[in-house]
Amino acid sequence: MSEKLRGVIAAIATALDEEGEPDCARSVALARFLLGDGCDGLNVLGTTGEATSFSCEQRKCLMTAYRDAGSPLDCLMVGTGAASVADAVALTRHAAELGFAGALLLPPFYYKGVPEEGLFRFFSEVVQRVGDARLRVYLYHIPPVSAVPITHKLVERLMKAYPKQIAGMKDSADDWAHTKSMIDAFAKDGFDVFSGNEKPLIDNIKSGGAGCISATANINPGKIAETYKKYATPEGEKLQGWINDVRGVMQGYVMIPALKYCVAHYGSDAAWTPVRPPLVETDEKAGKDMIAKLDKLGFTMPGLKQAMAVAAE
Amino acid sequence: MSEKLRGVIAAIATALDEEGEPDCARSVALARFLLGDGCDGLNVLGTTGEATSFSCEQRKCLMTAYRDAGSPLDCLMVGTGAASVADAVALTRHAAELGFAGALLLPPFYYKGVPEEGLFRFFSEVVQRVGDARLRVYLYHIPPVSAVPITHKLVERLMKAYPKQIAGMKDSADDWAHTKSMIDAFAKDGFDVFSGNEKPLIDNIKSGGAGCISATANINPGKIAETYKKYATPEGEKLQGWINDVRGVMQGYVMIPALKYCVAHYGSDAAWTPVRPPLVETDEKAGKDMIAKLDKLGFTMPGLKQAMAVAAE
Repeated sequence: MSEKLRGVIAAIATALDEEGEPDCARSVALARFLLGDGCDGLNVLGTTGEATSFSCEQRKCLMTAYRDAGSPLDCLMVGTGAASVADAVALTRHAAELGFAGALLLPPFYYKGVPEEGLFRFFSEVVQRVGDARLRVYLYHIPPVSAVPITHKLVERLMKAYPKQIAGMKDSADDWAHTKSMIDAFAKDGFDVFSGNEKPLIDNIKSGGAGCISATANINPGKIAETYKKYATPEGEKLQGWINDVRGVMQGYVMIPALKYCVAHYGSDAAWTPVRPPLVETDEKAGKDMIAKLDKLGFTMPGLKQAMAVAAE
Repeated sequence: MSEKLRGVIAAIATALDEEGEPDCARSVALARFLLGDGCDGLNVLGTTGEATSFSCEQRKCLMTAYRDAGSPLDCLMVGTGAASVADAVALTRHAAELGFAGALLLPPFYYKGVPEEGLFRFFSEVVQRVGDARLRVYLYHIPPVSAVPITHKLVERLMKAYPKQIAGMKDSADDWAHTKSMIDAFAKDGFDVFSGNEKPLIDNIKSGGAGCISATANINPGKIAETYKKYATPEGEKLQGWINDVRGVMQGYVMIPALKYCVAHYGSDAAWTPVRPPLVETDEKAGKDMIAKLDKLGFTMPGLKQAMAVAAE
């Protein structure tokens, strides 16, 4: 865990086999496609990757599969959060040992309204028990899902206690003012703040943030990556408008199954459709409606079919 | 899993050793005390038992310890919920194999706003993959914590699909009107609805419910059990008022650490105080304040000190 993660990071979806286990071959094939199409990195087993719908063993197996497939782990962060300290430690240790560039850590997400001190102890115990100098932790602020926020005060305490380990944040509150306040408060000390989607990408970069970690980058990697590279130009501004339009279409559906539906559709591989409970697949009616809207924007996924054909063999 | 659970069930707290692992000896000693003091049953590893703060292995070990200590498993339900189907299956299977009377199953609690169909699939997959005719599932409705409700429609679908396995519900919404609506809709078909605390105990019994599963029963087992036995008498009504006063004091503090503080205090065993992150122990100031209020109500825990002395050896 030594390279700095930066730029456009896709929160990659996890393919499933017929038993509902992670389909490592298909997942790794999508990873190759996304990195080949311009993503600077991947966030494996995040919310979009349905991490919490798998057991620790399933998560560790998939992490190992990414390593075994020769994925560039110095560009990959992996979600290692769990409701229990013991699970978070086991997953985070595995990530550090394999050589992932970063561990994206949810707060413990069962109890609500917990004190800051309790969250501080949780993250402290993970950092201390993993005890690996290579560990780089990204704090995962996603109150619409976890319902447990990461406050400025908590970031401040953790950075003071573990200046090398606490590397940054994924801010998925979908509130640019909040993200900016985190950048303004902590970027100067090397704390890398990623927006939780690409909508404020140019603002993020111009304000001193580290980029975005995006679910939509599963289907729109090239143009989001291009927006990042051209952020200071009028062309970049124009691209930002178009990628936001694509994101806007996707937000009209349940995001995770909708993204998998798109990968299945544009990749001609129906095996990508399933999700684990409590999520439910996008139905055909909604799916066709969504594809029609994407078609209107001139949206395509060139090269995905070939990439998926390799994995399906 | 054959006996009908009924009456006053304590949602037993889990003691911790110095490493933060479940302290089986102390936990089992409290179980003996609670059953000896009048509880009809126990709910092991529920929210009060900090289940989700432990790994699957830690939970399975503690479940086995209750069995090995000779606990009357036909009076014990155990929390086997998890965010992932795989974990919920492993825990629920272990519960059925050991012979626990019931499994209290949370909905998957990471994703929010999920469709009923997704929750139906989650519970279905657990029932089907455990595949044990002895399995009795209690659905755990606790929206203030899980933020994922169990609706009437979901109960109806699950009862229709698995009439033998779906045994009842713990309703911890803290809303008597909601509990009554569940009793009115499903009790006639043998669905046992427990209130999530003792405040509406007499109303629950008179309306055809199965009793209560209560955190406060960790410290007030005898009087709550007596209220249940005398529910149809004026003495029962009077007792209901007093146990509600005790509950009222406890609700002024963070419930789980406050209960452990009381067990430590009245049991003269400071080892009971710790909680796992993200919870934090009750501090001395709040603790003394709480004990003073309980003293005013004439509250005591006779016999606890002797029960704890055995475990501390």
